[in-house]
Amino acid sequence: MAAPAPIDRSSEADTRRRIILAMVALLQQQGYESASIKRIAAAAQASPSSVYHFFPGGKQELAIEAMHHGARGFSELLTKGLSSSADPAEATAACALLLADDLKQSHWSDGCPVAVTALETIGRVPGLQEAATRALTGWRDLVTAKLTESGIALDTARSLAGTVVSTLEGAELLSRVTADDTPLRDAAVHLAQLVGAAPRN
Amino acid sequence: MAAPAPIDRSSEADTRRRIILAMVALLQQQGYESASIKRIAAAAQASPSSVYHFFPGGKQELAIEAMHHGARGFSELLTKGLSSSADPAEATAACALLLADDLKQSHWSDGCPVAVTALETIGRVPGLQEAATRALTGWRDLVTAKLTESGIALDTARSLAGTVVSTLEGAELLSRVTADDTPLRDAAVHLAQLVGAAPRN
Repeated sequence: MAAPAPIDRSSEADTRRRIILAMVALLQQQGYESASIKRIAAAAQASPSSVYHFFPGGKQELAIEAMHHGARGFSELLTKGLSSSADPAEATAACALLLADDLKQSHWSDGCPVAVTALETIGRVPGLQEAATRALTGWRDLVTAKLTESGIALDTARSLAGTVVSTLEGAELLSRVTADDTPLRDAAVHLAQLVGAAPRN
Repeated sequence: MAAPAPIDRSSEADTRRRIILAMVALLQQQGYESASIKRIAAAAQASPSSVYHFFPGGKQELAIEAMHHGARGFSELLTKGLSSSADPAEATAACALLLADDLKQSHWSDGCPVAVTALETIGRVPGLQEAATRALTGWRDLVTAKLTESGIALDTARSLAGTVVSTLEGAELLSRVTADDTPLRDAAVHLAQLVGAAPRN
C-alpha cells in the first residue's frame, strides 16, 4: 500500500463526486443488488477504501446519496419540460419527450435512478425506500405546482400529477425493455390529453 | 448423501413447480440479481442440485420460465378486469383496481414479475429482455383487443393500450414504494377517462 498522500480537499471532493456519479450510473443501469463496492470503485476510478472513507455506511449510505443526486437530475429534466410552455398539457408532454430523447441518447441504458433500487429493496431496506419515496414525491410536487399554476384545483392537480409520474416511470420501463421510444411518445400524447381535459378554476 | 430415491414423476413435477413459484416470488419481491440458486432452493424447499436438474441453464433459464409463468398470472388479472364490463373505460379501470387489491393483500410485496428483472438486466441478458418484451407485448395485446372490440380503431387502440400498461406498471411502482394504493386508484380514474374519450367507429 502506498504512503498516504497529503490531503487535497479539491481532489477529495472530486473523488467523492466521481464515486457518487458512478453509483448513480450503476443504479440507473443495473440497480442496487449487483453494485458491489469493488465494482463501484472501479467505475469511479477510485479504491474500495476511498468508497468507505467517504461513505462509512458502505453501499447503502452511498446508494441513498446517489438516489438523491439522481433524483435532482430528473427534477431538472422535469423543470425544463414544465417550463417549456405556459400550457400545462404541452408542458407535461414535453417532459415525456425530453425523457425519450435522453434515453435514446444513452442507448436505453440510463433509466430512472430510483425505480430499480426501490423495487429491489421494498420492505427490506427502509433507508432506500425513504429516499425513493422522497424522490417520487418531489417529482409529483413539481408537476402539481405547474398544474395548480394553470388553474387546476389542488386535489385534482395532485392526483393527475401522480399519474403523470406513474406513466413516465412505466413508459420509461417499456421504452427501455423494447429499445423503442414509442411508449414514451404515446405517453406524451395521452398525458397532454388528460391534463388538457382537467377542469380549471 | 442419501441414496437416490426411485423416480416419482408426480413428485418431480411438483418439485419443478415449487421451484418456479419460488422464483416468481423472488423476482416479484427483489428481482433477479439477489436471487441465488441457494436462496431459490431454500424458498422452494428443494436442493440446489434439483434446481440444476430441472434447469440445467441455471438461474437464467429458471428466470425466463418464471417470467413466463408470472406473466401468465398478470394476463389472468387483466383478462378478469377487462371482461368485468362491456364498457372499455370501466373495464380498464377494473384492471388497475384489481392490481391495487392484489398488491395491498400481499402487503406491497408481490409486484410485477417482469419489471425489476428487466430493469436490472437491460442490454446485458438478452434472454431475459426477450421474455420481458414478450410479457409486456402480450399484456398490451390483451388491452388492445378489448379496445378494438368496442369500436376503437386499431392504431389508436394499440397506442392507448401501451399507455395503459405503462401507467399500470408505473402506478404499481409508486404504490409499492409508498405502501399506499392511491397511485393505482388514481390511475384507474385517469385511464378510464382516456379510454372513454377515445373516438369510436
